[in-house]
Amino acid sequence: MDPSIFIFGDWGTSRLRLYLRQGKSVLDRRDGPGVSVLTKSPEQTFLDLVGDWREAQPAGAILCGMVGSRIGWVEAPYAPCPATADDLREHVLKIDADGLPVSIVPGLSCVNPLGGPDVMRGEETQILGALELDPALKHGRHLLVLPGTHSKWTVVEDGAITGFLTAPVGETFALLRQHSTLAAGVGVEVQGSAQGFAMGLARIAEHGPALLPHLLFETRARQLLEGLSAADAVGFLSGLLIGADAAAARQWFGDLGKVTVIGAPALNNFYDQAIASQGGHVTAIDGDAAVLAGLTTLSPPKNSDFHVLA
Amino acid sequence: MDPSIFIFGDWGTSRLRLYLRQGKSVLDRRDGPGVSVLTKSPEQTFLDLVGDWREAQPAGAILCGMVGSRIGWVEAPYAPCPATADDLREHVLKIDADGLPVSIVPGLSCVNPLGGPDVMRGEETQILGALELDPALKHGRHLLVLPGTHSKWTVVEDGAITGFLTAPVGETFALLRQHSTLAAGVGVEVQGSAQGFAMGLARIAEHGPALLPHLLFETRARQLLEGLSAADAVGFLSGLLIGADAAAARQWFGDLGKVTVIGAPALNNFYDQAIASQGGHVTAIDGDAAVLAGLTTLSPPKNSDFHVLA
Repeated sequence: MDPSIFIFGDWGTSRLRLYLRQGKSVLDRRDGPGVSVLTKSPEQTFLDLVGDWREAQPAGAILCGMVGSRIGWVEAPYAPCPATADDLREHVLKIDADGLPVSIVPGLSCVNPLGGPDVMRGEETQILGALELDPALKHGRHLLVLPGTHSKWTVVEDGAITGFLTAPVGETFALLRQHSTLAAGVGVEVQGSAQGFAMGLARIAEHGPALLPHLLFETRARQLLEGLSAADAVGFLSGLLIGADAAAARQWFGDLGKVTVIGAPALNNFYDQAIASQGGHVTAIDGDAAVLAGLTTLSPPKNSDFHVLA
Repeated sequence: MDPSIFIFGDWGTSRLRLYLRQGKSVLDRRDGPGVSVLTKSPEQTFLDLVGDWREAQPAGAILCGMVGSRIGWVEAPYAPCPATADDLREHVLKIDADGLPVSIVPGLSCVNPLGGPDVMRGEETQILGALELDPALKHGRHLLVLPGTHSKWTVVEDGAITGFLTAPVGETFALLRQHSTLAAGVGVEVQGSAQGFAMGLARIAEHGPALLPHLLFETRARQLLEGLSAADAVGFLSGLLIGADAAAARQWFGDLGKVTVIGAPALNNFYDQAIASQGGHVTAIDGDAAVLAGLTTLSPPKNSDFHVLA
């Protein structure tokens, strides 16, 4: 066993990303299926994928994301907020996979800024990673957002995740884009235009997020009456949804100021524009880099006893 | 030809309703396919369905809805707002179907209360019908709403439709209900509960429509963390979307006061509750009755020359 070698995994609903790490270097990387599309058990899927990596004698593996949900490998109950890296480390679930110790990072639950229940699973690791990549976030109160299928607006205070608020922005966009009359007849290969996106942001900035459902219909009316192009229509739809997500944040958080956006570069760029249209400014962190930094923070100390469940 | 006998039709995207009328009586009624699901041409579909009715020697037919759109029988260009019954009558498109004069009611376009373009097709007939069924609506300024796949909030001033605002509420509900992770695992046969619906209205009343996307995610979080039942989850989703539609109306219209709701009784009941939760009160008009009254208003005068396009 080489205590410097470890397997990291970001195992979500639709995608698995595995990394073979030595210290801070990535020796190898491979992708696999998300937990919702497995053809074998999660354990067998994992062992088949990491098979030859075991020759390097990794000390263990650590996995975050939906792998720890009811539809994953084993359920790692949500840890409550406020939560620091230390709190999450305590809640890591340890199992054994054919002799390899595997740590499963739990998700987080909270009472969100609207007083409702909320959950995340996977994003907590990216947030802790962002705190390592930008240590200024460990002091004071900060707003972060992780855009995607479900955007997660997160408040971090003095290094602890104190609460977050989720909106199914990417999911709603995909459904309206593919199935609704708003983008009917727009081929699936059409990408949204930057001009359409900017127009969507502007309409939200003008009327506020409360009128999002009504502004959505403009996507159709502008195609019918003004000859809006397919690419502009798709961009407009995206701009309305992301613009409303950013505008709503001002209602519960207050003035946006600096917002840290953690995600894929293209998505970060959309949120950068949306947050700017609402008076804020953005520091962007790449989502994959944040996962690696977060898993590093949550990994067991190199010489710790590795307690394994029976 | 019997000038007192006329065929009325409400021909939408997914459904055709035909009525054989004599004066104010319905002699017969039958249903057919909407314009998006035809297996024959619109003309042939119509002629096959009304075949034996021709023995009664109807003076003509009048049809409203998507039958007059690009995907319908013949395109009847939108009439602009403000529009009275007289204005719409002038824009009715007259065609011939195997010797039977057929009038196609045009839709309406407007610059909506948010300054954007908006369209309706079919609802204009229901609104004019509501003015006949409740003549008090012909004087002063009134807010009406036609709930459905696309809710249409409409302002009528002294008998003219001066503007309207559309939101794809029913369509968004159906997509989130059937395809999203918010109601994942909820069987399609599950009906929303009244309790869940009321909870959705209350959450919108508490936080305002701007937070709709974020409150939507509670549908999922409450199932995961609080054991919210499937029926309550579906009702909650519906309550959030309809509650936000009603709450948004206050932002552009002002205090709601009396709102006339025109639709199917079950849907009218949902809007009744939503509008009440936003401080308004409702007069409900059955949608089918409104269509018949509207088509009566828009029918050609019995002894008029019936100008038929070649």
